[in-house]
Amino acid sequence: MIYRHLLPLVALLLIGSEISLSGNILVLPGEFSHWYNMRVIVDELVARNHSVTVLIHSASPSINFKQKENFKYIVFKVSTEKEEAEFLWQNFINSSMNETLTGIQTLLLFWNIMSEIQSYLESICDGMLLNQELIASLRESHFDVLLFDPVMPCSDLLAETLGLPLVMSNRLFLAYTFERLCGQLPTPPSYVPAVATQGHLTDHMSFIERVENVLLYVALTALYKLQMITFDKCYTKITGKPTTVCDTMGKVDIWLIRTYWDFEYPRPLLPNFKFVGGLQCKPAKPLPKEMEEFVQSSGDDGIVVFSLGSMVKDLPKKRANTIAAALGQIPQKVLWRYTGEKPDTLAPNTRLYDWIPQNDLLGHPKTKAFISHGGTNGIYEAIYHGVPVVGIPLFGDQSDNLFHMKTKGAAVMLEFNKMETKDLKDALTEVINNPSYKESMMRLSRIHHDQPMKPLDQAVFWIEFVMRNKGAKHLRVAAHDLTWYQYYCLDVAAFLLSIVALVTFIFVKSCAWLFRKCCRRTSAKSKKE
Amino acid sequence: MIYRHLLPLVALLLIGSEISLSGNILVLPGEFSHWYNMRVIVDELVARNHSVTVLIHSASPSINFKQKENFKYIVFKVSTEKEEAEFLWQNFINSSMNETLTGIQTLLLFWNIMSEIQSYLESICDGMLLNQELIASLRESHFDVLLFDPVMPCSDLLAETLGLPLVMSNRLFLAYTFERLCGQLPTPPSYVPAVATQGHLTDHMSFIERVENVLLYVALTALYKLQMITFDKCYTKITGKPTTVCDTMGKVDIWLIRTYWDFEYPRPLLPNFKFVGGLQCKPAKPLPKEMEEFVQSSGDDGIVVFSLGSMVKDLPKKRANTIAAALGQIPQKVLWRYTGEKPDTLAPNTRLYDWIPQNDLLGHPKTKAFISHGGTNGIYEAIYHGVPVVGIPLFGDQSDNLFHMKTKGAAVMLEFNKMETKDLKDALTEVINNPSYKESMMRLSRIHHDQPMKPLDQAVFWIEFVMRNKGAKHLRVAAHDLTWYQYYCLDVAAFLLSIVALVTFIFVKSCAWLFRKCCRRTSAKSKKE
Repeated sequence: MIYRHLLPLVALLLIGSEISLSGNILVLPGEFSHWYNMRVIVDELVARNHSVTVLIHSASPSINFKQKENFKYIVFKVSTEKEEAEFLWQNFINSSMNETLTGIQTLLLFWNIMSEIQSYLESICDGMLLNQELIASLRESHFDVLLFDPVMPCSDLLAETLGLPLVMSNRLFLAYTFERLCGQLPTPPSYVPAVATQGHLTDHMSFIERVENVLLYVALTALYKLQMITFDKCYTKITGKPTTVCDTMGKVDIWLIRTYWDFEYPRPLLPNFKFVGGLQCKPAKPLPKEMEEFVQSSGDDGIVVFSLGSMVKDLPKKRANTIAAALGQIPQKVLWRYTGEKPDTLAPNTRLYDWIPQNDLLGHPKTKAFISHGGTNGIYEAIYHGVPVVGIPLFGDQSDNLFHMKTKGAAVMLEFNKMETKDLKDALTEVINNPSYKESMMRLSRIHHDQPMKPLDQAVFWIEFVMRNKGAKHLRVAAHDLTWYQYYCLDVAAFLLSIVALVTFIFVKSCAWLFRKCCRRTSAKSKKE
Repeated sequence: MIYRHLLPLVALLLIGSEISLSGNILVLPGEFSHWYNMRVIVDELVARNHSVTVLIHSASPSINFKQKENFKYIVFKVSTEKEEAEFLWQNFINSSMNETLTGIQTLLLFWNIMSEIQSYLESICDGMLLNQELIASLRESHFDVLLFDPVMPCSDLLAETLGLPLVMSNRLFLAYTFERLCGQLPTPPSYVPAVATQGHLTDHMSFIERVENVLLYVALTALYKLQMITFDKCYTKITGKPTTVCDTMGKVDIWLIRTYWDFEYPRPLLPNFKFVGGLQCKPAKPLPKEMEEFVQSSGDDGIVVFSLGSMVKDLPKKRANTIAAALGQIPQKVLWRYTGEKPDTLAPNTRLYDWIPQNDLLGHPKTKAFISHGGTNGIYEAIYHGVPVVGIPLFGDQSDNLFHMKTKGAAVMLEFNKMETKDLKDALTEVINNPSYKESMMRLSRIHHDQPMKPLDQAVFWIEFVMRNKGAKHLRVAAHDLTWYQYYCLDVAAFLLSIVALVTFIFVKSCAWLFRKCCRRTSAKSKKE
């Protein structure tokens, strides 16, 4: 009689114990900052007693799989060499910093590089999915879930092959074509601006901007469909039956989105889209002694932290000099993460570092501004610690990221290839001396910290949820089972319009017939008369 | 030097301390089960040291504002008497149980009652907003937020008058017209079935069902617009300037929706829509001694819990006898909450109660089934404790609620006015003896318990968030600032089509001109020849 009151408690304890049961997780990471972000989730999963296996290919340019970790690496061979891959990515970055090319030349170069990257990605797909030994060994491991970054191609196909539920870590991008077409995310173009390489639209658009946004959606959708032709062929080849990327990508159980409403313009979402932006952020740790001394030597002026991200190793000499000259003209001390040749114009207030503890520096009370390329990780560390930004975007989503910060009043943006010394100096002075930038960033910081659940906890919760429940079917919209014309009810509209047309036709014909009948009678009458 | 590492901690502590700072909350409740649900939030807010004032009118049929509580009541006078209001609601319920009326008669009766309810609601609006003394005293109280149920009319207008941020507790209903038109919630009719009084559509619809759904959207939107004419007039009269319900309702900061994905079919949502279904549920407490003895006397057969909700006091004699006869034919003991006359067919296994501890009974391990009218609260208590349902819907969203449970395999539905003794007996036997119902309900129960945050905590978090931040502007979509044709980009489409038409026209005209020119030359040549 007494035990029954304990039943809900037992049920909750069971759920609780399921949470703490260790799961077996297969991770397919992205590269560079994407891996840095996912690594934080991996570490947390390991800390929560889960067994994690990271699957990576032999040509990974940024993951040091020879290092001993508290998780396991499985490395598979691909036909590309590591040096080739590194060269490819470096080429990609350099193309963004080339000042001498014309618009058309840049576009052609970009297209060439993208084609090369596409071949590289295909070689990864082949290396992974056509390797029967690898597949068999993965199958034997009996994983509970596959966590992946879409930068690692064919991850979804691997999940399909192994019959695993899927969690994806992603940053909404390129007019959300991926999320819209494969994930069924509704994105009304009237107030959801297309994320493009040169973002300049917000959620409040004029008529002309809305026209531009609609055209951007159309163009980026076409571009996406063009790109997918190769991948769809690759997927079809591997599966041996007609398969598209959207077929398998549409099966993703949880979409972990690497942003939040501090950063995004508010817009519709789906029940299986979880926003976990800034999951890597944490309070600052003490700096190394020498660095702390340099920081303290800045006095009341404080410091500026400068990094263009882990992918950029070097800058064109002229650009480096322009930048260094500007840094020399501000009263702050500058810590610049830069592995290239020391610029001639480098002033005594600026120190170069091969590596900086970026999060710890941004969390330092002497930090006045952050010069950033606008990577999502860096932007979130700036939001977390409330540091205003001078943004110099280079490629990918960086311009869009910085534009978000700019429109929210927390950043000034510069163009890498066009900015002069004065521009950078003025931007820094503005961001440091005009209190509105700090205030805006603090407002975003407050929103970031004031969430019901920490982003990392949220990410881990949903990965564990998918393991416990073998997926998250109850969050998957039925739109996945509709064709595009069914989704937009075009068949229903056609049907209803046909009925209206038919009724109108019958009505008109009947009227005409009645009218003729009446006329005939009248004319017959008049004839008789 | 050391203090700086504590800074983020201090920031977090500050946020933490803000959470525990007591706020001043004005609550405008709904009636009956709506108030029961909101009361749970109110109690939790009081427990968290907030000061709560419940504003209620003198004709409230279900809120006993004379009772001493740990929050404050403010009562304002309305022109309707309490007895009139009670009579009105009773009439509304009786109309659903009248077997003798034809379809048209029911519709006419329903229309009459709705008109009377509308007048009653208007009298509340007037009583509240034209009472200058009340407004002045509320203004002096300096509330931080207004929490309301839309059953209390003009709550949003009061918030507007007092300049308060708004949190609404709501259950999506009637093709989501409210949420769609005022809240900008996207609801693609291809897979979001219109919630109607006789729900029979799910998120997976055939072509004909999609046609039906589209027509339902159109009809219910028209009905809503018709209803709103009176309210818009009332709003305009009170504010003294053209004002619609959507104008003020669109300013709601947080929509607390009284369901969750255990109950709902997955569909799009907005950042300021928070799902808090089942926030009132809690583990079962021990039953009163006499009741526990009766329950235990059921042996292995167990018990059936039966309630048609707090609004239904009496049943037509014939119906009561049909039901009682069915209950007498099952081996289980039945606890029936019923205040009407004792039915002649009542069997010894059935006991009538003026009131039952419904949550405690549903959480009892001997409970095999729940006979319910399908109110949201009852359904959530059944989900929470995993008890399958025999549903007898009467009015409002009840049919839709039960239909959700039916399609998820956790309930059998009956029609109140048509069911025979055998139907109810068979339904009970099916639900109790076919294990699939229990399994389905347990699946929903697992989803319900496996959330990142408890629904009540979620509700309170967002109310406190709105207090801390004086609103939740960062979650409000820009769609609120668009007209309907801008929202659907119809102006953009018209513009782009015009351009296409113009280009086509110029192209065709140019071709025709060139063709004519060529022809003329050829004919001139041939003439010469």
